[in-house]
Amino acid sequence: MTAYLDNSATTPVCPQAVDAVTAAVRDYWGNPSSLHAKGIEADGILADARETIARRLFCRPDEIYFTSGGTESNNLALRGAAHAMRRRGRRIVTTNVEHPSVDETLKQLEKEGFEVIRLPVDSTGRINERDLFRAVTPDTILISLMAVNNETGTIQPIEQARLAARRNGSPAIIHCDAVQAFGKLPLKPAALGIDMMTISSHKVHGPKGVGALYIRKGVKINPLVFGGSQEDKIRPGTQPMPAIAGFGAAVKAIPNISEELENVTWLRNYMCMRLSALDGVVLNSPPDALPYVTNISVLGINSEPMLNFLSARGIYVSSGSACAKGHSSPVLKSMGLSEERRKSPLRISFSRFTTKEEIDMLVDGIAAGQKAIRKNK
Amino acid sequence: MTAYLDNSATTPVCPQAVDAVTAAVRDYWGNPSSLHAKGIEADGILADARETIARRLFCRPDEIYFTSGGTESNNLALRGAAHAMRRRGRRIVTTNVEHPSVDETLKQLEKEGFEVIRLPVDSTGRINERDLFRAVTPDTILISLMAVNNETGTIQPIEQARLAARRNGSPAIIHCDAVQAFGKLPLKPAALGIDMMTISSHKVHGPKGVGALYIRKGVKINPLVFGGSQEDKIRPGTQPMPAIAGFGAAVKAIPNISEELENVTWLRNYMCMRLSALDGVVLNSPPDALPYVTNISVLGINSEPMLNFLSARGIYVSSGSACAKGHSSPVLKSMGLSEERRKSPLRISFSRFTTKEEIDMLVDGIAAGQKAIRKNK
Repeated sequence: MTAYLDNSATTPVCPQAVDAVTAAVRDYWGNPSSLHAKGIEADGILADARETIARRLFCRPDEIYFTSGGTESNNLALRGAAHAMRRRGRRIVTTNVEHPSVDETLKQLEKEGFEVIRLPVDSTGRINERDLFRAVTPDTILISLMAVNNETGTIQPIEQARLAARRNGSPAIIHCDAVQAFGKLPLKPAALGIDMMTISSHKVHGPKGVGALYIRKGVKINPLVFGGSQEDKIRPGTQPMPAIAGFGAAVKAIPNISEELENVTWLRNYMCMRLSALDGVVLNSPPDALPYVTNISVLGINSEPMLNFLSARGIYVSSGSACAKGHSSPVLKSMGLSEERRKSPLRISFSRFTTKEEIDMLVDGIAAGQKAIRKNK
Repeated sequence: MTAYLDNSATTPVCPQAVDAVTAAVRDYWGNPSSLHAKGIEADGILADARETIARRLFCRPDEIYFTSGGTESNNLALRGAAHAMRRRGRRIVTTNVEHPSVDETLKQLEKEGFEVIRLPVDSTGRINERDLFRAVTPDTILISLMAVNNETGTIQPIEQARLAARRNGSPAIIHCDAVQAFGKLPLKPAALGIDMMTISSHKVHGPKGVGALYIRKGVKINPLVFGGSQEDKIRPGTQPMPAIAGFGAAVKAIPNISEELENVTWLRNYMCMRLSALDGVVLNSPPDALPYVTNISVLGINSEPMLNFLSARGIYVSSGSACAKGHSSPVLKSMGLSEERRKSPLRISFSRFTTKEEIDMLVDGIAAGQKAIRKNK
């Protein structure tokens, strides 16, 4: 038996998505841009997936643009909006705990003359709403806030961005990286005042290689790549069809979000209760974090040997973002955590398929790891 | 029975690739950037696919960068090279028959201050080598030539680009869009003097959603998207794993290229022989075109009604590039074809799975279409 508790890095593909991907490569391999029957068949699958995803975001299908994944969606949103708005201002407001695909893209925009304000976070990883209101000015053209932090599960007050823009007379386009929130929290971008929202297939039991960007009707951004007329010219290139079919099937298979949230909250609480019996294990996530993601530190034991110890027992967790492969976390640093805690983080991330047995394996594994690794020192 | 003769738009996924994709979503769904066993397993599949593709191009695995497809590879190559080289010059040399993903990207670079020289083609669709030598100057920083035209099969003298650069003292990076050539012609970018080469999975019986860019060791280009450290930071973002597994399997399954070329040449000649018996059918492709792609015009009958007539009989061809969905072809215009011929083109594109029976269906279908459509006029 294994315990896969690294669902923030990627999730197992659900059976419905496996079937959809297989059917797409085996039977429905036409090019959706082709005008003959084989193309029309593929175009139908594309339209179905788009509608399924739109329904989850309570938006129109033509507000969903397929991309190659969360990283590309974030790049497209930020670069596309900044350049489309550059005559109205140069100021961009964000947080200092964003995913590398937001943070690195904004660094690039800084090199091109944009000014980026990175709001600090408190010890829970949350920005202060007053800071946000103060940071947004009339020449702020873009605000980008992540919905749920990928390392700690901290939920940001994304609904405040629109208010901050309105109150300060800013024309800002509001972007939200919702990769870790989609399918786990109810999200209505229109009601939240959000103009662009990034989501990804492989974090919700769909295949890797596809994501989407919600762009509210009427919001104009520049494309990142140029070529054919696919995705309304906002994202040209033949669509990643088997992955899109799987993405649609995975989103269709997401059950009742609030029921799952209750189950996962119970599991998270059970895990924290059991972990609190171990000496030297401290919780880095706040109590009101999304229960799917829990960050802890095992004091005195660096992440790497613990990860290796657990992996050898079939227990899969991580030290942070898979995209940052091995580097120490700027998120935990921003939260003001001590160096001791920042050397030994473990990110434990659940899915709706996570079981109590997997959590028991994990907690027993950490306890055993503490003994084994300390002994070897 | 159907006749799928639109393989330049996309190809049926071969059984080996179907199996690889299915296994990747069902079993090997880990994130290749994860450090635990589930990630290492996925990383192994990634490395295998990279090696298989590198072997086909007689290059090193670390010269292969996975992207979301041909369009992104072309955008990355052109924009990445132009911006990396912009201190050494502003001049870019290309042809006026490139794929929209090259042509539109270069139009965008023109807006950013680069100068783009588009070489004309003769009636066979080929550029003149003397024009190329004259166009390349010491401040030319990029030359981009497609290997095989996607609408006519015309083969360009790509090996002349390096000579032109050398003779004229140009530091140009040489890019080749080889999407329609890969797997059909033997390609050794290093021997051809090519620095960057674009290839795509779904044109060689792999799944859609993945392509690659060969970048010769030592050639430095700027990335297009920013974020994690995947693909050596040239193309961050979680890799499209199921599609990459399928791409690798499809490339592994490509049989002897010269034998297939012989078979397909025979089929092409057989088709042309049969078509020449029909009144008003003219060949637009040159006799020395790659035999996988044949462009004809059915005089007096616009493409659309003929495509619909054929599609209704299960015969799938196109009027040109799927990426240009419905628009009339600038390629045929560049070749100086009469308006009559430009209104009625059919692109017939073969794969190694194409049969004589499919060609018979097509020719009979065109003959029947001529009668039926003319009668209705």
